[in-house]
Amino acid sequence: MQPLAGLTVLDLTQIYNGPYATFLLAAAGAEVIKVEPPGGEHLRKRSGSAASTLPYAMLNAGKRSVRLDLKTEQGRDILTRLADGADVLVENFAPGVMERLGLGAAVLQARNPRLVYATSSGYGTDGPYRDYPAMDLTVQAMSGIMASTGFADQPPVKAGPAICDFTSGIHLYGAITTALVERARTGVGRIVEVSMMEAIYFSLSSNLGMLHARGDAAPARTGNRHGGLSLCPYNVYPATDGHIAIIVNHETHWRGLLTAFGRTDIADGPRWRSNAERVAEMEDVDALVATFTRDLPRQAAFDRLVAHRVPCAPVRSLDEVMHDPHLHARGMLRDIDHPQYGPMTVAASPLRFGGAANAPGRPSVPLGTDTRAVLAQRLGLNETELDRLETERII
Amino acid sequence: MQPLAGLTVLDLTQIYNGPYATFLLAAAGAEVIKVEPPGGEHLRKRSGSAASTLPYAMLNAGKRSVRLDLKTEQGRDILTRLADGADVLVENFAPGVMERLGLGAAVLQARNPRLVYATSSGYGTDGPYRDYPAMDLTVQAMSGIMASTGFADQPPVKAGPAICDFTSGIHLYGAITTALVERARTGVGRIVEVSMMEAIYFSLSSNLGMLHARGDAAPARTGNRHGGLSLCPYNVYPATDGHIAIIVNHETHWRGLLTAFGRTDIADGPRWRSNAERVAEMEDVDALVATFTRDLPRQAAFDRLVAHRVPCAPVRSLDEVMHDPHLHARGMLRDIDHPQYGPMTVAASPLRFGGAANAPGRPSVPLGTDTRAVLAQRLGLNETELDRLETERII
Repeated sequence: MQPLAGLTVLDLTQIYNGPYATFLLAAAGAEVIKVEPPGGEHLRKRSGSAASTLPYAMLNAGKRSVRLDLKTEQGRDILTRLADGADVLVENFAPGVMERLGLGAAVLQARNPRLVYATSSGYGTDGPYRDYPAMDLTVQAMSGIMASTGFADQPPVKAGPAICDFTSGIHLYGAITTALVERARTGVGRIVEVSMMEAIYFSLSSNLGMLHARGDAAPARTGNRHGGLSLCPYNVYPATDGHIAIIVNHETHWRGLLTAFGRTDIADGPRWRSNAERVAEMEDVDALVATFTRDLPRQAAFDRLVAHRVPCAPVRSLDEVMHDPHLHARGMLRDIDHPQYGPMTVAASPLRFGGAANAPGRPSVPLGTDTRAVLAQRLGLNETELDRLETERII
Repeated sequence: MQPLAGLTVLDLTQIYNGPYATFLLAAAGAEVIKVEPPGGEHLRKRSGSAASTLPYAMLNAGKRSVRLDLKTEQGRDILTRLADGADVLVENFAPGVMERLGLGAAVLQARNPRLVYATSSGYGTDGPYRDYPAMDLTVQAMSGIMASTGFADQPPVKAGPAICDFTSGIHLYGAITTALVERARTGVGRIVEVSMMEAIYFSLSSNLGMLHARGDAAPARTGNRHGGLSLCPYNVYPATDGHIAIIVNHETHWRGLLTAFGRTDIADGPRWRSNAERVAEMEDVDALVATFTRDLPRQAAFDRLVAHRVPCAPVRSLDEVMHDPHLHARGMLRDIDHPQYGPMTVAASPLRFGGAANAPGRPSVPLGTDTRAVLAQRLGLNETELDRLETERII
């Protein structure tokens, strides 16, 4: 039995932020009814372009799809009635859009006080930046992620993954489940809200700590070195087939590293016996470590270091990650033959609940697959009424 | 009233991953009892070094602090009895540590079936990588974050923030609250688990989509350009005082950009009228946009572009972010005079529940501040017993 079995979620979300939250809800057992405009949500529309196919399929697995035109009065009426019977409504439109449609939290919760109304946007529903345009890249710029990423002698660079979108999505999930915990006690639903800019803030803790401690002397970005340039070795080093990341944050690691490469003479010698001494001669220490790794494949260097309990990891390509034996062994990834899109590698939920299934129930479906079934089941509409709504292009 | 008021959390976590989860629990109203070893958890020990002071204070605000030596039998007995009366126990030790202490989920849930037992680690509690050393940097290497970040002609680089730690921490929070939703129905607690490597996977959706669509032809990393090099303009451009990020993902944005800088002649001309044409001449288009921005301050370029509804953002320094008027206006950030550490800027929870407080109740406290009070309240120990435990260095 999955933990959220029996709960119904109305999902008006798009692209990554909201859809990740509702994917996790579906994977935890909730019935997620994805309500999309007549043309499909943005990411589905883009899934005509091949590169959006996999993200769309991954994020929308396990969800039902209902096509509904909220620009019509009848469409809005249907949505309102669906919300009457739902536990959660999730949306990540720009602030104010739902209110302008007459579908704001005040309206829906007045009719259904148990409804948890969840909203997410770039900068939140109030404050001076509320209406600024927000996408992952712009929030990475605005929130300090970009300034903190990259090499000191190079321009700021974005984090490669869409971390602002997805960090916000999982926060939104956490806010929703929190409100459901509370509702079990009070019987009343909440408005919950997450902004992308706020959701990413804590991830900068080390960088903010450095700024707090050193002010203007804090380095903006340090490439692969320690954010405060205060641990050494701490870097990414060359290998014959790529790179390996190594961290020494304890003297036992330093000895382990030297032992792994047959250089206990250094460990026993007068130089570099403390982290402070190594930090003071960081370039030289990094150059030494590079001589250890550069003639070995990543995996060989990794195996040798791990045997000596030195924290390290090969820098893996995305292709290696997608075919990672560990992630496949744990059921996080699996290869499917998607009915619409063909063979692909899809992911389960990172949230694991004892032995319960953490993979969504069925692959993503074409737009509107479940429209008639959902409206018949939930609103009691008959075939004649559904035909009329289709003819009038409401659904 | 905060949504998690009345719940008790036993917090055995350290550094960032677990402590972020329990910070969010505290900020949502739970009573979080942080149980630390005699020397304090790692981050507290480090908070002797100035750069860890702010992260420690931010992440441990709102928590009670109990000093307890789990290496002693009496210490483990006290923890077990505390778990008998708790709703949630959270830990992020390496897999197997709690079992070896005799404090595993099986033991604790046999005594208290309502207990939600939450665990997080780098690679999870099973699978071939289970015992690999895991820290934010190594998981960034292993999970593809590093390979996806940086400029195409430069080595892979880590994302500046500790995204693997914090992404895992918020997933852990979501897993805990989900198990609490279920417990409200079933009366029984779950084991919940999150691994850092799995928690970050979905954030690579765009990059994975590109790999799926193009295979070996997919670019590993594209600096600040679109991950698939399929949108233009999409980059970070120079300004007199830094950089500005600009995205054109709709033809109206392209016209807006040109209009903002008085170049409607280009919009109306024969060249670059479609995204495909612009992508084909990406270097030239980027060079043109740079001529628009390079003589203006970031904010002036931003104001002009936003007035024409072009998605963009100034690349902000961390100092600007910490003093951001928007985050302060929304109460996400506030300046306090910390009783131990002095003036600093601390953060509230990014999870907002209607009008309920989302800031933790009191600043972080010195190690063991609440030891006697917690053991007296929860286990009924009297002064004599507490004195004895102190003398024997159990607490």
